[in-house]
Amino acid sequence: MAKKIAVLGAGSWGTALAMVLEENGHEVRLWSHKASQVAEINQQHTNKAYLPKTILSKRIKAYQDLASVLEEADAVLFVVPTKAIREVARNVAAYLTKPTIIIHASKGLEQETHKRISIILEEEIPTDKRTAVVALSGPSHAEEVAVKDLTTITAASTHQESAEFVQDLFMNDYFRVYTNQDIVGVELGAALKNIIAVGAGALHGLGYGDNAKAALMTRGLAEISRLGVAFGADPITFLGLSGVGDLIVTCTSIHSRNWQAGNLLGQGKTVAEVLDKMEMVVEGISTTKAAYELAQEKGIEMPITAAIYKVLYNEADVKEAVVSLMTRGGKSEGH
Amino acid sequence: MAKKIAVLGAGSWGTALAMVLEENGHEVRLWSHKASQVAEINQQHTNKAYLPKTILSKRIKAYQDLASVLEEADAVLFVVPTKAIREVARNVAAYLTKPTIIIHASKGLEQETHKRISIILEEEIPTDKRTAVVALSGPSHAEEVAVKDLTTITAASTHQESAEFVQDLFMNDYFRVYTNQDIVGVELGAALKNIIAVGAGALHGLGYGDNAKAALMTRGLAEISRLGVAFGADPITFLGLSGVGDLIVTCTSIHSRNWQAGNLLGQGKTVAEVLDKMEMVVEGISTTKAAYELAQEKGIEMPITAAIYKVLYNEADVKEAVVSLMTRGGKSEGH
Repeated sequence: MAKKIAVLGAGSWGTALAMVLEENGHEVRLWSHKASQVAEINQQHTNKAYLPKTILSKRIKAYQDLASVLEEADAVLFVVPTKAIREVARNVAAYLTKPTIIIHASKGLEQETHKRISIILEEEIPTDKRTAVVALSGPSHAEEVAVKDLTTITAASTHQESAEFVQDLFMNDYFRVYTNQDIVGVELGAALKNIIAVGAGALHGLGYGDNAKAALMTRGLAEISRLGVAFGADPITFLGLSGVGDLIVTCTSIHSRNWQAGNLLGQGKTVAEVLDKMEMVVEGISTTKAAYELAQEKGIEMPITAAIYKVLYNEADVKEAVVSLMTRGGKSEGH
Repeated sequence: MAKKIAVLGAGSWGTALAMVLEENGHEVRLWSHKASQVAEINQQHTNKAYLPKTILSKRIKAYQDLASVLEEADAVLFVVPTKAIREVARNVAAYLTKPTIIIHASKGLEQETHKRISIILEEEIPTDKRTAVVALSGPSHAEEVAVKDLTTITAASTHQESAEFVQDLFMNDYFRVYTNQDIVGVELGAALKNIIAVGAGALHGLGYGDNAKAALMTRGLAEISRLGVAFGADPITFLGLSGVGDLIVTCTSIHSRNWQAGNLLGQGKTVAEVLDKMEMVVEGISTTKAAYELAQEKGIEMPITAAIYKVLYNEADVKEAVVSLMTRGGKSEGH
């Protein structure tokens, strides 16, 4: 049955997900805080800054005010940068009038608190205004979803019925959704893989090849899993779509902004120059700080995260940091 | 201390490993059954058919007769195609005069018997002629090792001392070796990942993007692990260098022959045309048959392997097989 869905955030991923929902017959209202973007979507049916080659359905309507977007919504999908989640959620809570399915497709950890996105959403949206929080994550370049290339993704929630509701919303021939109850593992995998993508990009920028990148990704997956397990995640989740699947797609494709940022660092650009050059949000940079601090608190060994942290925040030389990482001791695998 | 090493097989990987050993100060004798290749290596110091851009050290000597190569060898490294392992091992056994470290870097399963390489080696080389069998595996394009790009690899043996001996033989600044006692998991990961690489290549040839390939690799890793665990492997091994690491490098790089074979299939070439076009051995094609039969015997679900098997051996349409694979039922991850 057709539902009314509020999609908050008209970046490339929010727009691509709105297209899938519209394609599936749902009524999609897209929220953006930029007046010019709202006008472009409603009048030209394009979103050229984010998906330059895409023509949107005329049935996707954009709005600049939250009230119009949220009115009678059956579900609210958050696709805003991590740093904006809390504020937007607080505003959303003020407008909701009934228990609503809360979905998010953001990938990061809150600065200072180090909290996962679903925790922020639960804190800001009172229980009488939400049925459950569901995280949507997996290997999914927005550019490919927009052209209906086959994509497989996870809908994670401790509330199975809500995960299945989200599965039904999005599922079609080219967009395959699987449910998963381990939202801790799914959210941590989604956030932390961006750190490894920065590292893989840095290796590329430094001139290293596929062998070195595969080794980094393998060890990266291991350290992501270690941190996840310390926070109660199921280690198997890191072997799934939102774990190794998303890690692969983010670390091996030039589409990834985190990879691009790392690549520029590897080529010798300073952090300030990289931030200046990247027009979209690079979640991996702030996630590195949050994960580094979490690992310190919990006493978890995360050598790749620590190396990237030193490059990003302590002016460490990228070549030295990466090379010492790849050639450090350890005689048997896993040690 | 410098050792005498017999390297059997002068393909790209055998040659690259010989270069690492020579670089580390060992006396390397390289065996090839082709007279012209032996002459080229000894006179031109090149091996253009396999590593076209490489100049070999003059200290690497090639031989066409096994006796000269094996004389006083401290270790024998097998880098021949899987289908030649048993015959070469039988010939080697006839020349060995003392317990010798047996290393192999081949990736496959024996046709008909479905045996791992180390089992074949143990069957053909009597216990009084071998100290232990060690498998060398990991994400490692020969072309990158030949230019001293950073590479990380696993030396696996149930005999830890021998694994450490092999680690010491190969370890240097750009070639990092880690020991692992789970030779079952390392050998199965090495062999089975080639099936998934054929699938990833086929997806590429059919025009699918990174999202679909990442999903295939994720599910491929799961089914490799399932079969491995049924044969006593440690599931953690599939998360390591010889598992996910090698899977990534083989499935995301155009260097891989298995990926290339799949890509041609995806483009619409017949199996016969693909075999005709590939000048080097494509281990994944025969491994698919062995793994498919093993999975049938053990009652293990391996949908990707089954789909590739049907394309390779039952004339199934590659598009239909792959699409039905990617869009098959299953509502929650892992089911």
